Amino acid sequence: MAKESACIGDLKRVADILNDGENFLLTCHIRPDGDAIGSMLGLGLALEEAGRTVRYFSQDPVPRFLEFLPGSSRIEDSFDEDFVSDAVLVILDCNEPSRIGEQADRLLEIAKHVVVLDHHLGENKHCEQRELNGAGNCEGYICTEASSTSIIVLDLLELLNWPIGKDSATALYTGIVTDTGSFRNSNTNKKAFLTAARLLEAGVDNYYVANKIYQSVPRKRLELLGLVLKTLEVHEQGLFAMIHVTPKMFEITGTTEEDASDFISYARCIDTVEVAAFVKEFQPGVVSVSLRSKHLVNCAEIARHFGGGGHFHAAGFRTAGSAHEIRESVIEVVHDYFENHGSQGVSGV
Amino acid sequence: MAKESACIGDLKRVADILNDGENFLLTCHIRPDGDAIGSMLGLGLALEEAGRTVRYFSQDPVPRFLEFLPGSSRIEDSFDEDFVSDAVLVILDCNEPSRIGEQADRLLEIAKHVVVLDHHLGENKHCEQRELNGAGNCEGYICTEASSTSIIVLDLLELLNWPIGKDSATALYTGIVTDTGSFRNSNTNKKAFLTAARLLEAGVDNYYVANKIYQSVPRKRLELLGLVLKTLEVHEQGLFAMIHVTPKMFEITGTTEEDASDFISYARCIDTVEVAAFVKEFQPGVVSVSLRSKHLVNCAEIARHFGGGGHFHAAGFRTAGSAHEIRESVIEVVHDYFENHGSQGVSGV
Repeated sequence: MAKESACIGDLKRVADILNDGENFLLTCHIRPDGDAIGSMLGLGLALEEAGRTVRYFSQDPVPRFLEFLPGSSRIEDSFDEDFVSDAVLVILDCNEPSRIGEQADRLLEIAKHVVVLDHHLGENKHCEQRELNGAGNCEGYICTEASSTSIIVLDLLELLNWPIGKDSATALYTGIVTDTGSFRNSNTNKKAFLTAARLLEAGVDNYYVANKIYQSVPRKRLELLGLVLKTLEVHEQGLFAMIHVTPKMFEITGTTEEDASDFISYARCIDTVEVAAFVKEFQPGVVSVSLRSKHLVNCAEIARHFGGGGHFHAAGFRTAGSAHEIRESVIEVVHDYFENHGSQGVSGV
Repeated sequence: MAKESACIGDLKRVADILNDGENFLLTCHIRPDGDAIGSMLGLGLALEEAGRTVRYFSQDPVPRFLEFLPGSSRIEDSFDEDFVSDAVLVILDCNEPSRIGEQADRLLEIAKHVVVLDHHLGENKHCEQRELNGAGNCEGYICTEASSTSIIVLDLLELLNWPIGKDSATALYTGIVTDTGSFRNSNTNKKAFLTAARLLEAGVDNYYVANKIYQSVPRKRLELLGLVLKTLEVHEQGLFAMIHVTPKMFEITGTTEEDASDFISYARCIDTVEVAAFVKEFQPGVVSVSLRSKHLVNCAEIARHFGGGGHFHAAGFRTAGSAHEIRESVIEVVHDYFENHGSQGVSGV
């Protein structure tokens, strides 16, 4: 079960701002995932149902696998400044301006009101920046014990006593499913299950959503997976697994970086493995590396050796080089990590 | 959401038999899965907690990935006839004697009482056989609206007002997770989510269970997957996908049939696919074929062409031949199926 921790902010005050508002611009973090898009559409469609005017902004496009969500085609990559200056800006699923992208400063400067809803660890940097600008009117609710921001949105809608339509519920359910890895990740808790049950009551066709998320894989992704699995190597007495992808493999299969997303889970899922790396040379000479661990290995510490960062169980970095060169460096750095921490410090079972 | 349907039998009468019993033999179906083992251990450990004497019988061994369940090492492949003749036989997760295996007739003949708990479609053939034998004393509860037999067991324990310990809850949670495919299958409903929440309350470490089920893959299984994905072929304008495995691939990777379990999901998950086949030549000249569909394709009808059978969305057959020969036959039969049913009859979206 996820560890319990306090929530920062007052959901009732957020509810009051939503209730009083007329115009809303909803936004989320760059490279949006299922919870970013799901919480944004879930809240937005409910606001519209309650008679408000809502627009949606995301710097980066909606990923292909989320295009089935009603309303997703209305998410724009630009915004009207006049509209925003008379609107409540609702920032979902991130608590730091840089995560909104290049337009963050402008948005935080001109919006009439700002509301932040998030479940990531961190302080509410959006409101700090508003204070520095002297703009104020900023309210946040950041709750790390929530498995996803979509769960916070449902709490908010229930506090407002607003009806939750099928489309809104479908978006929120998608946020929960994707952020919990279909109820498998360590953040999956009792509240996640109870919220899922509540959303099915609101009309979600959960089998339809599951098929859209997990049964809509392009054939070429599987062909790429076949090539990548052939690169599997295991080091450190089975504790460390690594796979890699080269520009040649993308070329042979006609795929792009998006098709390789989450391949690291195939390296991480090996029974003996505590930490896994996926080395992606997605352009010739440009490599990005993902690191994932199960229990006691600190991925962020390994990533920092290469100028990267992230969380304890998930981190990464980008660097120049070929997949083969970077592979060798990662093997060395992970080896040193294991030397420094000893076998007690890396195995959680 | 799963369609609602009536339950057959009276759970209260089952509860009374359990409450009155002293000795219990619990059994499940051959080639046991997570719900067979999970519901058996979940009920058994709670019976023991309530002071009863419990033994466990399964013709086939506990699959490797379920060996983490407390009590799993106590499941035996034989039983003591004297014990059974003074015991309540509880049959879990199947409603037909042949599914228990070769000892079914003997067990149904000598047990003092018989109780059947199941969620599969079908009549209670166990009790029919008891009637024919003149033995009687047979009570069943078969509930197809339950996502798993483990959910029925929890209902039963709550009806009895017996405490649900962490080990029992962990077994039941495992049954739900595996039978719903981690809450993705079409049988996943509101009750499944509410029951999961209830079991977390009883102390289940759901991240531990998820890691044991989904993050404990032998390395050689991934190596086999890499080889099998190279065999991927797609026919019928993308609607039909097929993969196969040969004895040579098992040999190269040092794997057995168990390591290839569920590979068909990789063929089925392709966006354009409505039906998928996995052709397994697991011994030279002996082939088993799995068929899975998403919406409107009747796998059982295709399997019957080869003397097999099964459900609408999941069926299969065994036959003599090489993987390459059977591949060709399956392509032909699926082609004929598509010809006969037309494009409206095969695509569900």
